[in-house]
Amino acid sequence: MGPQILRIVPLGGLGELGRNMLVLECAEDLVVIDVGVMFPENDMLGVDVLIPDFSYVLERADKLRAIIITHGHEDHIGALPFLLRRVRAPVYATRLTRGLIEVKLDEAQIRDVDMHTIQPGDDLEVGPFRFEFFHVSHSIPDGVGLGIQTPVGLVVHSGDFKFDHSPVDGRRTDFAKLAELGGRGVKLLLSDSTNAEKPGYTPSEQVLGETLSRVFAGARGRVIVATFASNISRIQQIIDTSQYYHRHVAIVGRSMVDNVLIARELGYLHVPEGVLLSLEQLKQLPDEQVTIICTGSQGEPTSALVRMGQQRFRPVSIVPGDTVIVSATPIPGNEEFVNRTLDNLFRLGANVFYDEVLDVHVSGHASQEEQKLLINMLQPEYFVPIHGEYRHLVLHGKLAQRCGLKPENIFVIETGDVLELSAAGAEVVGHVSDTRVFVDGRGIGDLEQSVIEERRLLAGNGFLVAVVLVDKYTGGLLREPQIVTRGFVYEAESPDLLERAKEAVAKAVEWGGSRLEIEDRLQESLARLAFEQTGRRPIVIPVVVKV
Amino acid sequence: MGPQILRIVPLGGLGELGRNMLVLECAEDLVVIDVGVMFPENDMLGVDVLIPDFSYVLERADKLRAIIITHGHEDHIGALPFLLRRVRAPVYATRLTRGLIEVKLDEAQIRDVDMHTIQPGDDLEVGPFRFEFFHVSHSIPDGVGLGIQTPVGLVVHSGDFKFDHSPVDGRRTDFAKLAELGGRGVKLLLSDSTNAEKPGYTPSEQVLGETLSRVFAGARGRVIVATFASNISRIQQIIDTSQYYHRHVAIVGRSMVDNVLIARELGYLHVPEGVLLSLEQLKQLPDEQVTIICTGSQGEPTSALVRMGQQRFRPVSIVPGDTVIVSATPIPGNEEFVNRTLDNLFRLGANVFYDEVLDVHVSGHASQEEQKLLINMLQPEYFVPIHGEYRHLVLHGKLAQRCGLKPENIFVIETGDVLELSAAGAEVVGHVSDTRVFVDGRGIGDLEQSVIEERRLLAGNGFLVAVVLVDKYTGGLLREPQIVTRGFVYEAESPDLLERAKEAVAKAVEWGGSRLEIEDRLQESLARLAFEQTGRRPIVIPVVVKV
Repeated sequence: MGPQILRIVPLGGLGELGRNMLVLECAEDLVVIDVGVMFPENDMLGVDVLIPDFSYVLERADKLRAIIITHGHEDHIGALPFLLRRVRAPVYATRLTRGLIEVKLDEAQIRDVDMHTIQPGDDLEVGPFRFEFFHVSHSIPDGVGLGIQTPVGLVVHSGDFKFDHSPVDGRRTDFAKLAELGGRGVKLLLSDSTNAEKPGYTPSEQVLGETLSRVFAGARGRVIVATFASNISRIQQIIDTSQYYHRHVAIVGRSMVDNVLIARELGYLHVPEGVLLSLEQLKQLPDEQVTIICTGSQGEPTSALVRMGQQRFRPVSIVPGDTVIVSATPIPGNEEFVNRTLDNLFRLGANVFYDEVLDVHVSGHASQEEQKLLINMLQPEYFVPIHGEYRHLVLHGKLAQRCGLKPENIFVIETGDVLELSAAGAEVVGHVSDTRVFVDGRGIGDLEQSVIEERRLLAGNGFLVAVVLVDKYTGGLLREPQIVTRGFVYEAESPDLLERAKEAVAKAVEWGGSRLEIEDRLQESLARLAFEQTGRRPIVIPVVVKV
Repeated sequence: MGPQILRIVPLGGLGELGRNMLVLECAEDLVVIDVGVMFPENDMLGVDVLIPDFSYVLERADKLRAIIITHGHEDHIGALPFLLRRVRAPVYATRLTRGLIEVKLDEAQIRDVDMHTIQPGDDLEVGPFRFEFFHVSHSIPDGVGLGIQTPVGLVVHSGDFKFDHSPVDGRRTDFAKLAELGGRGVKLLLSDSTNAEKPGYTPSEQVLGETLSRVFAGARGRVIVATFASNISRIQQIIDTSQYYHRHVAIVGRSMVDNVLIARELGYLHVPEGVLLSLEQLKQLPDEQVTIICTGSQGEPTSALVRMGQQRFRPVSIVPGDTVIVSATPIPGNEEFVNRTLDNLFRLGANVFYDEVLDVHVSGHASQEEQKLLINMLQPEYFVPIHGEYRHLVLHGKLAQRCGLKPENIFVIETGDVLELSAAGAEVVGHVSDTRVFVDGRGIGDLEQSVIEERRLLAGNGFLVAVVLVDKYTGGLLREPQIVTRGFVYEAESPDLLERAKEAVAKAVEWGGSRLEIEDRLQESLARLAFEQTGRRPIVIPVVVKV
């Protein structure tokens, strides 16, 4: 790789939702942008989170100069502890993002990380790259986009962004900087594709204030609002609205409490003294003076809202007259959990407002018109849609084409693809290891796809283990075989089946042979018996012991 | 229960999506309306379908006079074979519905069912009830609503309906009959709540024809359309549009082929000779003369469309230039499967149209304005929202209140609740057995919740079985214990863990004691070891055998 070549290697987030991570590489220098986690889909059984495959970076650890984080969402910072356990480099982030990262590193007991605070307007030289940070509005404060001067030209990375013309914190996406970057001539734009399916403009976060106000105005009892713990602007608006209606506020749920604490400390959340109270203190107040902000907007099983719905959250019992606002849209895969929670809250008599019946959520990502605006302001020569499932990338690519970019200059690439840019042009030159690394408990990447596959079988049909003792001299069955099953049949109700399994064992043993031969025979006959009797296919494991 | 009391007992479909079944009962007579299945949610592991708890009907089998089916969707007919295996009664259905039921009974090898064809306009006397059938438009032809003269007054059951003013088959919901019923004075209305969250009107099925036409006009290669096999009107429109654009059509997918066959035979689908061809015959034609209609619009793993996306459907390989239309909205819980399929199709270079980017689907259910229209046409004294999850029922109840019904006359009841109507008024008098009966393989209802719970544990963490032979005289370990795991760790990569497990076994055996004592001790120490080493909690089962 010559010095005048720039490599772009996405290690996550292209063709999938989450685990965003991108490598920029030039001869002897390598920079990582974002290191996020991805949340498992419903059939990735037992997986806590997925992280990027770090191999490409680890194999080039001596070239790694910096890790730059665009904002503090989990899909951009969540895998940082895993990376920093394997390799170290200076980490650059804005103040709030840094605060959120530090909580995470603390929890993971990772110390002595070389952290640097950046702010919009800063310039940062790293090897042959010069980074210029500019503010972007998003559903968490303090997000940045990147102008990156490289040996092959100017690259712009949008971060996660929207063009909110009236953001709650007053900080707009930096149009002036974008115009200036556009004026300098942009070689390559990497831009957020999350909402490439959505026509028009994403509404301002501020419109939510009006909706909240309407609901609060009509509320007679307590108001309980569930939303994303990271959406500080929304929390600000809920607190402001509560104050306006003379309500005090309690914050419930660990991530919510943590985020509010950091955001207040760092000045991103403004709450007058005396407004925030504990749940205990709120109990002294009449219901119409109470607001509770809590986690659970995605139906997370252990969250406060979900437990309230199940009447398993001690401090708060939902009663008729309570108003509940679920200020979020279900992330695909969470619909059933969210719906169950909504139904439970309705059953307890609450007035429930949620995205299907009221505009209680706005997205933090640019819709099509904003995506086109960014493309047109920058007029890049090359375009790579980032942050999106495959269809989002394709649709974003088509938008760029409609904006006048040459089709051959639009690269719809996926995680692991290697794109090289030089004076001569751009091309995809290969594909690197892009395994979805599963984290389950303390195991990182030791969870093979085969184990997930076993879980899928177990989930569908359970298992049956037969422990069989055979006399090594006579070859006869030494005693009644022991049959252990879980997730297959309800044993108490299936004595007949277990009886027949024991008969099958006796027959298989009669035929004699080596331990393995008997096990093979048993495996087959028990599986057949199980299917014939129940139509199910449990994992069948015979354990034959010759004594 | 006196002769002047009417009992309404929903055995499914109220507070849940699917397994619709409703009992009407009067002194010595009982009628069942619909007998549907429900599809399992993502965490009902290994369950094929759920059916109603028939206990209430079985306990009163001698009173069962008739089973009346409103239309041929699975959530209204799917559990009929299960019921008819336990109890028999005459079954009444319209022609197409009957056709679909007969296919189902054939498959289940249930014979000699006393089937009767009804048609809109018919009157049917059953015990003290007189049923009057009227046509309703829905996403399957030949749906009916019911006017039911009972000893306590006139009851109207909406079936699943919408007010389509320009239905594809020309058959509108019967306004005249509704007006006539309204004029007679309606005691109780039972009405479809599915879309109670949706404001306004549901668009006519016909608007889809225009959308299809636009997509077909722009298509250069093959057009592949996935939709619900039961939506005969949509299939009709796809065939009509294909003809208009000089395309021949192949039907792919078992349920799609079956339904098209019945619908053509019975005259519900009109296809001129020569339009339908086999996939084999289509191969002889240029791509721009080819349409394929197939299953898979919900991302069902074994469906044609899903396999096309995975390049595992032999007869059809997706190529750039193909146009794919997924003419459906994902049912909650199916989003991830649908999204994966869309992405796969995009990856193969197809132009894909789906509900997020184009109006390629309309609902078959009434939205709020239509629900209100029905309430106002009938002006019932009492109202029970049916067919919906709990929040839909609550919202539908609120609509009825806004239409002027007395709040105390609106009963938001759930599956299993018993509502009694008499001259004196209406009240909920109790609750009957409403178990969600799981069907898994050939097992009906033998799948206990505890087994599902075991599957959930297995799905999350797998299992570990330790087979330990102990000398019954010395109490010593007879040989190296055997550890069997699945879904827990990848054995080849965890020799250390298995080694330590064996040590733990040795230690536990040393302490001696009875078989059960050793097993208890082993259970605890192995579970602790597993958690300490991996952070996971597999099901741990020690099998100690004294020899």
